[in-house]
Amino acid sequence: MIASPYLLYLGHSNDEVGIKTSRGLAVFRPDDCVGEFRHDDCGLTLGLPRMDFAQAVQAGARTLVLGLAHAGGNMGDDLVRDSLAALEAGLDVASGLHSRLRDEPALVAAAERLGRTLHDVRDPRPDIPVGNGRKRAGRRLLTVGTDCSVGKMYTTLCLERGMRERGIKADFRATGQTGILIAGSGVPLDAVVADFISGAIEQLSPARDDGGWDLIEGQGSLFHPSFAGVSMGLLHGAQPDALVLCHDPARVGMRGLPHYAMPGLKETLEANLWAARLTNPDVRAVGIALNTSKLSRADAERLCAETADQLGLPCTDPFAMGVNPIIDRIIECFEPSPREAMPSR
Amino acid sequence: MIASPYLLYLGHSNDEVGIKTSRGLAVFRPDDCVGEFRHDDCGLTLGLPRMDFAQAVQAGARTLVLGLAHAGGNMGDDLVRDSLAALEAGLDVASGLHSRLRDEPALVAAAERLGRTLHDVRDPRPDIPVGNGRKRAGRRLLTVGTDCSVGKMYTTLCLERGMRERGIKADFRATGQTGILIAGSGVPLDAVVADFISGAIEQLSPARDDGGWDLIEGQGSLFHPSFAGVSMGLLHGAQPDALVLCHDPARVGMRGLPHYAMPGLKETLEANLWAARLTNPDVRAVGIALNTSKLSRADAERLCAETADQLGLPCTDPFAMGVNPIIDRIIECFEPSPREAMPSR
Repeated sequence: MIASPYLLYLGHSNDEVGIKTSRGLAVFRPDDCVGEFRHDDCGLTLGLPRMDFAQAVQAGARTLVLGLAHAGGNMGDDLVRDSLAALEAGLDVASGLHSRLRDEPALVAAAERLGRTLHDVRDPRPDIPVGNGRKRAGRRLLTVGTDCSVGKMYTTLCLERGMRERGIKADFRATGQTGILIAGSGVPLDAVVADFISGAIEQLSPARDDGGWDLIEGQGSLFHPSFAGVSMGLLHGAQPDALVLCHDPARVGMRGLPHYAMPGLKETLEANLWAARLTNPDVRAVGIALNTSKLSRADAERLCAETADQLGLPCTDPFAMGVNPIIDRIIECFEPSPREAMPSR
Repeated sequence: MIASPYLLYLGHSNDEVGIKTSRGLAVFRPDDCVGEFRHDDCGLTLGLPRMDFAQAVQAGARTLVLGLAHAGGNMGDDLVRDSLAALEAGLDVASGLHSRLRDEPALVAAAERLGRTLHDVRDPRPDIPVGNGRKRAGRRLLTVGTDCSVGKMYTTLCLERGMRERGIKADFRATGQTGILIAGSGVPLDAVVADFISGAIEQLSPARDDGGWDLIEGQGSLFHPSFAGVSMGLLHGAQPDALVLCHDPARVGMRGLPHYAMPGLKETLEANLWAARLTNPDVRAVGIALNTSKLSRADAERLCAETADQLGLPCTDPFAMGVNPIIDRIIECFEPSPREAMPSR
């Protein structure tokens, strides 16, 4: 396990979406995060105290988390240099990048010499099976999106919190490095070998018979030319009973590929329902989640209402407005009525 | 490079589809194959002389090819035992399985001791980029299928031969272990890490400006619950101008998952055209390829004619009847007219 508390790395980044792992930890595990590390040219902040490595150790930090998520996930010289300095200062280092800490000889040598630990969160377990598509017990909800980085993890985590508050058993199932760091386990799906994508999700979310839900974090988009294969295998492995469609209305082109236009919500929903029906013909859409952080509250509420009308589904910003409309729909569609749920004593 | 001639391994197999790599080599590189190795309980043959390892060495064989392709691709004890015996007899060993020869300590030690070489064909190159979806120069044809193992590689290789015979520049681009062994290069797509599926195909089939075609070997099926993610990323990376749909009319359930029914040809074609349009809105279907090896010639011809009528596309069995109807359609749709092609001198 990765030792907390964490120092969250922002580095030289000026790309809000690129620091989503660091921000996710700051938001969903605030008690485990003591500060942020950023260079002078980094224009972003998580609202945590800015610290260098020595200050972080003083403040109790035990691990530097390289919470970046750029396409390809390579480790640049600056990341290696900063990681070395962190090790020297007394911190472990955890990374969710495709490039592995263990493949950097300088880091391996320094960690060895200093008795520190390197964590590569994106190493999948070695025993992932090929998917078999067999129907398994239990309810599953999957978040899908118009694009990468449009709020699928946030939505899934908000649904877990909201459903538990309303007495519904629900467990977040992480499929990306941020989610894994937040949940403490999961599968780094984009690092799994292609033949095993759906099998990895079958393994992550096995049969359950306690009446509870697995809430599976979606990845990518069926409309993203780089990553649609991941999204497709994830849909098939999840066998979702319920889909929640996530979207960022401020996004003007596909993440990393601005020469590709964003797909429409209706088109995205239909494509995901079509693909999901292969392994669960009874799949239903239960809501739309919008990231309205760049809108005024009034505009956000108007947009949610309009979107709900257009698609005939509850629509909310899970983070700003909560997830109750979506949970109401889930209960309506799937949960037993009170009479069924509570046998007379 | 892998030293030829080859001894082709059938082992204990009684699954015709599971030996497709061995059979592919026997069919498309007959001059490089001196014999087949099979145990007494193997009911299959490639029509080559049956040999043990010592006899194969006598006959000039230099490499035992483990030409199996079962789901998951694990290496059983029998494969390790036979590979050891082959090394002892003086053969190299080549494998396209997911499990790697280099992960078997007994094989590594024996190869080292005997000065023999182990080839893991399914190791992807280390520099595969994330796909970018940018339109690139040149024409591309992709074979797609209703299922795994329905003739996509055969069709692609037959198209290469047929197009070259008619003076059209065309190059087979291998995406699976058999194709790679036949072509001498390619990408083992199902072994690529999930985030890089489409990028691997962009790398395999880069821009070309000589007027020729890249004929890309398809993998899996959008309707296969285990492998559809691979097929989806392959479609996006290929940016195909032309699709050929492959099907085995004798197949009654999905390969390895008989609890899944086969999709219809029309449904499969529409789904593939839909997915392909993301990176090439001008994609067209140019033909249907049926594996009619289990039908009489008369029944095969009738089925091809009926299928052509139903779908409005040329339909043939590439291996038994040739690919001319499909090439005619390609010329009609894409090739310049003779006047354009041949400037006056």
